[in-house]
Amino acid sequence: MAAVAAPGTWARARLGVLPGRVCAALTALLGSQRPFSSIFKASDLQVELSQHLKPQPDPGALVFGKNFTDHMLTVEWSQERGWGRPYIKPFQNLTLHPASSALHYSVELFEGMKAFRGTDQRIRLFRPTLNMERMYRSAMRACLPAFDQAELLECICQLISIDQDWVPCSDSASLYIRPTFIGTEPSLGVSKSGYALLFVILGPVGPYFPTGSFSPISLLADPRFIRAWMGGVGDCKVGGNYGPTIYVQNEAAKKGCQQVLWLYGDDHQVTEVGTMNIFMYWTDEHGDLELVTPPLNGIILPGVVRQSLLDLGRKWGEFKVSERVFTMADLLKGLHENRVKEVFGSGTACVVCPINHILYQGQSYHIPTMENGPDVAKRFLKELTDIQYGRVSSDWVHPV
Amino acid sequence: MAAVAAPGTWARARLGVLPGRVCAALTALLGSQRPFSSIFKASDLQVELSQHLKPQPDPGALVFGKNFTDHMLTVEWSQERGWGRPYIKPFQNLTLHPASSALHYSVELFEGMKAFRGTDQRIRLFRPTLNMERMYRSAMRACLPAFDQAELLECICQLISIDQDWVPCSDSASLYIRPTFIGTEPSLGVSKSGYALLFVILGPVGPYFPTGSFSPISLLADPRFIRAWMGGVGDCKVGGNYGPTIYVQNEAAKKGCQQVLWLYGDDHQVTEVGTMNIFMYWTDEHGDLELVTPPLNGIILPGVVRQSLLDLGRKWGEFKVSERVFTMADLLKGLHENRVKEVFGSGTACVVCPINHILYQGQSYHIPTMENGPDVAKRFLKELTDIQYGRVSSDWVHPV
Repeated sequence: MAAVAAPGTWARARLGVLPGRVCAALTALLGSQRPFSSIFKASDLQVELSQHLKPQPDPGALVFGKNFTDHMLTVEWSQERGWGRPYIKPFQNLTLHPASSALHYSVELFEGMKAFRGTDQRIRLFRPTLNMERMYRSAMRACLPAFDQAELLECICQLISIDQDWVPCSDSASLYIRPTFIGTEPSLGVSKSGYALLFVILGPVGPYFPTGSFSPISLLADPRFIRAWMGGVGDCKVGGNYGPTIYVQNEAAKKGCQQVLWLYGDDHQVTEVGTMNIFMYWTDEHGDLELVTPPLNGIILPGVVRQSLLDLGRKWGEFKVSERVFTMADLLKGLHENRVKEVFGSGTACVVCPINHILYQGQSYHIPTMENGPDVAKRFLKELTDIQYGRVSSDWVHPV
Repeated sequence: MAAVAAPGTWARARLGVLPGRVCAALTALLGSQRPFSSIFKASDLQVELSQHLKPQPDPGALVFGKNFTDHMLTVEWSQERGWGRPYIKPFQNLTLHPASSALHYSVELFEGMKAFRGTDQRIRLFRPTLNMERMYRSAMRACLPAFDQAELLECICQLISIDQDWVPCSDSASLYIRPTFIGTEPSLGVSKSGYALLFVILGPVGPYFPTGSFSPISLLADPRFIRAWMGGVGDCKVGGNYGPTIYVQNEAAKKGCQQVLWLYGDDHQVTEVGTMNIFMYWTDEHGDLELVTPPLNGIILPGVVRQSLLDLGRKWGEFKVSERVFTMADLLKGLHENRVKEVFGSGTACVVCPINHILYQGQSYHIPTMENGPDVAKRFLKELTDIQYGRVSSDWVHPV
């Protein structure tokens, strides 16, 4: 698999590329004398290029998360030696001990971010430092080792740079980036992992909404199912928050709903929708226009798009922007009194996703999101994608 | 790695053993025409024996979960083909796609059980059908495929039979059995896994308590940390229930406590301790002797030893046996009024584990468990181990 010469896809020689076998020999030679490393550095990247570049999928037929690029980033850690060198190598299966703590105790976390190709052909990341910060926080909660966020981001940029031909030439598709961090402790005690693996995989993803459409979704709000709870890890992007939702998502599908509206507490607080944060744009009880989303009280994932909508809304200064608890009763009362204008989810996949129905306690409630434009959701979508694709300059983008 | 002849360790020829290469050839030949299999069967087991048997560790120096036997069981499943044949093969690393759903979304569950060697040299499992039932329930919750519980149990027995020399000759050590079931869907959508892998690994474990001792442990009860919650998956043995506890366990250790006492709700209900169920033996508010443990209300793991202590206690008929909620206030009032006799955890690792201190809201409370024998805990330990090691006959044991 080792490539002696850089392939055509890797246009910019940002790295000192060594053939894979030479790398392996050097690692074997130097590895045993390597001192303990509390961080890994992008300047230590070792690169083994694939000699078998995959055909790229039809950009019109991309299914989220099913296609992966030619290369991946891996960095190993052990309690004894600290971080090894970061490694970019051909995309390949992982070899894991069957007792690995990720497989038994869910010592695992991830991030989701995107790289966008602008009409100027430049590739940009959107607020990636927020993802690095969240990943670091998740790692601390999972008792996985600390890392330097800027160094990881630079390694990711180098990986994207190598696989840059995979970043779609489109103003609606993008390259999805999945940093993942798992415990690889090869023993069964429930304790801090002595071994870990950080890896990053990439894959092209199509537009969330087919061209021209902005399709609303319907939600099942069933208070018997709780996504996250106070005193737990609902504010971290750890694997255990996701697996249990699949069953509930299937329950929603059985009832003809596309996603789950996650409620919390005896008062049925509105918390998240599917894997997205949730926003409501309405006239509040005092007659003021308000954009409201649940606060970061421990059960809400601090989404990057969530933060960006709050930031944009506050910059516009045209309505109140609130992070506060609201309940199903608040929402239903608002609907009854014709005060609710738009309800939408926010996330990396869709940016914003309009919601037009909620099935709650056996009753279907229509939300007039689409009837109201949705003006605010569409404006958010346009402003954010203008930034992401470089049509508007912003310090929220990070060039690759 | 394939062995043509059965090695000496495999004394009883329970299986039609084929050399590994023949197996592989047959699989290749027949596999493509295999119809969809909704279950796997022990009679279809394929066995590839290791030619490189590992030296067995010193039985006096066994650390839980660090040593593994020579073989493992694997069974693959796919949405398209159903279950493949069960396979016993040399213990080896797993090869997993980096997008595997177990690594990102914690689509994973496990069981913990033990095999005991009696003085009659026979090997017994303890109530393994309860583990199979719980594993099945966990699988349904994780949206992993159904399997025939009796067939899996028989496959596990065959695996233990092959590695029977690893079952310690000791009336206090045993062979720990770790059935594991993971999603191996190689794509990043949060949805039902189209691929899965069930595997079982084994390892010898020493006595939980060094000979003669029955050491009590101290607990940190901090209501800021919640293990499981109503509407979640605390009653299933899924990975996501364990990873987040490591951080809290470390907090306990920092405060000089050995385990975490998990509380729940505003009234600080006592729920579990570390990875064990919890029992209190006391004189209740009405003056009656009572053994009490929290009920299976959704946040309690239905432990096999928990069920066995309830069954034994009810059979003895000497005191009230209750499954009901009790709170820290109940416990502290009982302590203050000298009504608490014993508090102990129950689990597969220790059977029963006495508790002598609880650190709660900055105050350390002494529990007089050891001062009271602990008569009930010791009696449970003796009765259960007598059954497990075949000193007393019981229909709770399952011969391997």
